[in-house]
Amino acid sequence: MHQLRKPYLLFLGGVSLLSDAKTGFGLRDWCPEDVIGECALPSATISLDLPKVTPNEAAARGAGSIVIGVASPGGQIPDDWIPTLVDALRAGLDVVSGMHTRLERYPQLVEAARQSQVRLINVRHADRDWPIGTGIKRSGRRVLTVGTDCALGKKYTALAITRALKTHGVKASFRATGQTGILIAGEGVAIDAVIADFMSGVAESISPANDADHWDVVEGQGALFHPAYAGVTLALLHGTQPDAIVLCHDPSRETIEDHPHIALPTLEEAIRRYIEAGQLTNKEIRCVGIAINSSTLSDTQWLDYRNGLQSRLNLPVCDPMRGGVDPIALALLA
Amino acid sequence: MHQLRKPYLLFLGGVSLLSDAKTGFGLRDWCPEDVIGECALPSATISLDLPKVTPNEAAARGAGSIVIGVASPGGQIPDDWIPTLVDALRAGLDVVSGMHTRLERYPQLVEAARQSQVRLINVRHADRDWPIGTGIKRSGRRVLTVGTDCALGKKYTALAITRALKTHGVKASFRATGQTGILIAGEGVAIDAVIADFMSGVAESISPANDADHWDVVEGQGALFHPAYAGVTLALLHGTQPDAIVLCHDPSRETIEDHPHIALPTLEEAIRRYIEAGQLTNKEIRCVGIAINSSTLSDTQWLDYRNGLQSRLNLPVCDPMRGGVDPIALALLA
Repeated sequence: MHQLRKPYLLFLGGVSLLSDAKTGFGLRDWCPEDVIGECALPSATISLDLPKVTPNEAAARGAGSIVIGVASPGGQIPDDWIPTLVDALRAGLDVVSGMHTRLERYPQLVEAARQSQVRLINVRHADRDWPIGTGIKRSGRRVLTVGTDCALGKKYTALAITRALKTHGVKASFRATGQTGILIAGEGVAIDAVIADFMSGVAESISPANDADHWDVVEGQGALFHPAYAGVTLALLHGTQPDAIVLCHDPSRETIEDHPHIALPTLEEAIRRYIEAGQLTNKEIRCVGIAINSSTLSDTQWLDYRNGLQSRLNLPVCDPMRGGVDPIALALLA
Repeated sequence: MHQLRKPYLLFLGGVSLLSDAKTGFGLRDWCPEDVIGECALPSATISLDLPKVTPNEAAARGAGSIVIGVASPGGQIPDDWIPTLVDALRAGLDVVSGMHTRLERYPQLVEAARQSQVRLINVRHADRDWPIGTGIKRSGRRVLTVGTDCALGKKYTALAITRALKTHGVKASFRATGQTGILIAGEGVAIDAVIADFMSGVAESISPANDADHWDVVEGQGALFHPAYAGVTLALLHGTQPDAIVLCHDPSRETIEDHPHIALPTLEEAIRRYIEAGQLTNKEIRCVGIAINSSTLSDTQWLDYRNGLQSRLNLPVCDPMRGGVDPIALALLA
């Protein structure tokens, strides 16, 4: 499992699109206490509105890592990023990347890391072997966020539930399964990057036996209804053996994103299928709430939609970005 | 995808257990026309009853590869295998292994392969990148073998169906997804060894668009009811987008092998779940028959069991090792 050194300096390269800085914004919003500041090239036009800090200044203030908080064109590191990253390595920071291309591809980074005895960390890659899943029941409680599709708020929902549980004085840990989640948590495994045989073993490893009253809040991946990623989703469901699921949904979608030939299931059907599949490793699994990505709805539309769905499904319905998830956290504890 | 050079010389090391020579027997039984002979160390006590041939003799008779047809203790190549494998490489044969340990770990093999310009092939490892699955319908027809559990005859059933279809003059290709299947077919991908993100993309790639009347008969892996491997099974089901499934079952099992805490589903439940999941990428999917591993039943028991199951499920019930699968092949063509 990746173990990252916090706090972070966030590096934004020459970013000019808001959507390219998604990772940076996620870290700023979800672990502000772990972020010392941002640094970028003069060509950058987007800022996270954090203190501007050089790698040397960040190191002097105790930073552990410089995190690439921006998508790079073509998944490669542009030449003009190298000097800043080398500066960071020389200042004693680890370089942490969520890109497909491994940092080891760049000889200048390898050499600087070697000289400073610091690390190049590729959170998208799972750099070790894992056990095979067992399906044997573990102590402690677990909730998994699942979806009608990919990319509609499973990570944010899990983070919001973790925060809400802690507010209620409940022992809870966010368990990261994707790159941005790993950066936020400081640890985790990108489950879609492991060898297929070991997927559910990874899911078991990241949510290990714990105190009976401790909740692991596991970041979901993919969707049972996605033609490319359903296998990852199922393995995560089996390995996590959740006591509870929270179903995430975006009401503006009628088909799987980028797959117009595949219709989304109804929410009732999605709940039934997740419960049916999850019962393999936890007979007590239940759905405790619905998390909606309501960004396409007006305030009135959202209230109407929420109230209608709550009475239709008899479950709390929340948008983590619009009023929080406290009703779901309370349903979890009920 | 691995492309192997046939015909093969089968190497058995110092084998003394029948079960350790499973791969060798599988190749002898399913592609005898591709096997020139066997060679073993003097300490071996098991034979495949094939002609005894040295690597040099095999090369002279046109062999393309020496295949390790025996499980090795601890998954490593014992020192006393190396001279025979080096002889084979020097004679111009590729060395093909289904072991976890890569052949490249052994410097003498690497050096001999380099000198002779031949290959070291690890069929358990997927040595390239794959596309992401799309779920888009392809031309041609496909049947996938699925199971109530692992290791109960999915490969043999697929091979037997391929053979039966060809007997009826139908264009059919066996599509291998595991190591022994790859050795038999001479090509394929070990789907449980690929990166999780690409599983269904691999399944699409190994059963590509084809003539409208051509059948791909795809070797299944794992089971939807296995706590470690269900994700692989689901991805293979989605990527294959089968028109038909054949459910494989061993009536002597009540729980998942080595997982006494997980009960097997009923056959009705298993069929329902595979059909439900498969409908994501092929609405027309149907179950055309049941393949039973009846090795624990007497002749009378088998006939009683088969007749009872046929009337209960209204589907043909066959054991590929006991009477063949012709009724299933005919149901497929109906």
